[in-house]
Amino acid sequence: MKPAKISILAPGLLGGSVALAATQAFPKAELVIWSRRKESLAPIHQALPKAKVGTDWSAVAGSDLVLLGAPASALSSLVRSLLPHLSTHTLVTDVASVKAPVEKDVAPLLQGRARWIGSHPMAGSEDSGFAAARADLFQKATIILTPTSSTPAPTIHDAAGFWKSLGGRVVELAVEEHDRLVSRISHLPHALAATLVRAAGLAALPLAGSGYRDTTRVAAGPAAMWAEILLGNRREVLASLAEFRTGLQKLEKALANQDAATLTKFLEEAAEIRRTLPSP
Amino acid sequence: MKPAKISILAPGLLGGSVALAATQAFPKAELVIWSRRKESLAPIHQALPKAKVGTDWSAVAGSDLVLLGAPASALSSLVRSLLPHLSTHTLVTDVASVKAPVEKDVAPLLQGRARWIGSHPMAGSEDSGFAAARADLFQKATIILTPTSSTPAPTIHDAAGFWKSLGGRVVELAVEEHDRLVSRISHLPHALAATLVRAAGLAALPLAGSGYRDTTRVAAGPAAMWAEILLGNRREVLASLAEFRTGLQKLEKALANQDAATLTKFLEEAAEIRRTLPSP
Repeated sequence: MKPAKISILAPGLLGGSVALAATQAFPKAELVIWSRRKESLAPIHQALPKAKVGTDWSAVAGSDLVLLGAPASALSSLVRSLLPHLSTHTLVTDVASVKAPVEKDVAPLLQGRARWIGSHPMAGSEDSGFAAARADLFQKATIILTPTSSTPAPTIHDAAGFWKSLGGRVVELAVEEHDRLVSRISHLPHALAATLVRAAGLAALPLAGSGYRDTTRVAAGPAAMWAEILLGNRREVLASLAEFRTGLQKLEKALANQDAATLTKFLEEAAEIRRTLPSP
Repeated sequence: MKPAKISILAPGLLGGSVALAATQAFPKAELVIWSRRKESLAPIHQALPKAKVGTDWSAVAGSDLVLLGAPASALSSLVRSLLPHLSTHTLVTDVASVKAPVEKDVAPLLQGRARWIGSHPMAGSEDSGFAAARADLFQKATIILTPTSSTPAPTIHDAAGFWKSLGGRVVELAVEEHDRLVSRISHLPHALAATLVRAAGLAALPLAGSGYRDTTRVAAGPAAMWAEILLGNRREVLASLAEFRTGLQKLEKALANQDAATLTKFLEEAAEIRRTLPSP
């Protein structure tokens, strides 16, 4: 897929990075950036001088690809405003971290009006907003597509091609499988990092080394956005927290019993799993 | 303090990094590297061609500074072998992560035989052994010294001067305060990272982004070494795990109750603490 016109709606860290990366990947494509907030237009215009940047919905008309950069809770209202400017050939996708609510809210609105597929780029930062966007954010990043049984093959193919053009490595998962696995690999780590920061407190901070720095980095991320993500996936997040607590009890028991063998085995099994992760 | 002769005993990641950094900081000093294991001598000799590398205790005699690179459990046996080769002017320090057991085991052996002070460099890596050593490991790293009420001021001064020469930022803490704070900033994060890796499991790994990668990096570290550290500081580690569990219950309750306000506040308070940590 070589889109001739790309529109990015509500560009934050992810949408903004798509805009920057798409400018490099598709230098001849027309780029439209739509933002609800007038005050955010100037820096976007400065970073993307060739793009059409504004608050006008009609600029979106005729797009080959529309990327929804807003969080899940804002998507259905965004899509309702978008509907009059869609063609049936337009590929619409998003970047939200929890897919079941998006599929439930957004897919029915777009049914028969555009080609819809959910996307979740496993890329980000503790920083947020367009100011944190980077053209190389998706290089080697995993992009999860969540087609359903009714998603046509060309829609999957075109969405995958687009993300690959931005440097991503594309994986397809069913919506429920996505939400289950991502709760373990992203939402649980965030919940634990925040809880760890609170438990460690301020007193120990002057001693922090790279271990604390890395284990807690994500906890500096935007609280409201993460609260929405954790709540949106709360069934899976609660299930993974329960599994985590079971593991923690095992570790605490080994510590309390001064059981070096069990504790070493516990840590060794973790180290073996972690060492299977290739370097980025 | 400009040591004319420095001996590093049992050089792993930390001791090896001290050797590499000291070679740069004190190019005229005589450097002795002692290792129990004959098979580790060749790579050390290759990395430090000017150093005297071997298994012979007598080479250590006359050192101005002796650095014990071994884990806490090996220190008293190491110090017993070291005793005949010490002068009362020799400054002896270590790199162990838990100070109460070291102070209890090692300090009495060195009483009146050498100048002793405990050190804990807050630097490291998930890699271990001399092969992972780096000359710049202590640049801007926090080095905690744990003087007791009977440590003479010149001993503190000389140890601080040595670590500063290697690039470190020196902090003094009482032994108990060290073990309490370091449990929060280092031991608790390690225990949680290992438990997280186990809970997330292998299935989700292909989706891992930078969040999972960073929150779990330390879990790839050497299991036996970390088991010893957690057990050595188990009272404080168990206390910090209990505080962590209390926080986790609060987060789980907010999630289960779909209480967005409490959850956002929980995450925001964590983000505010984490954002106070300056970039490295």
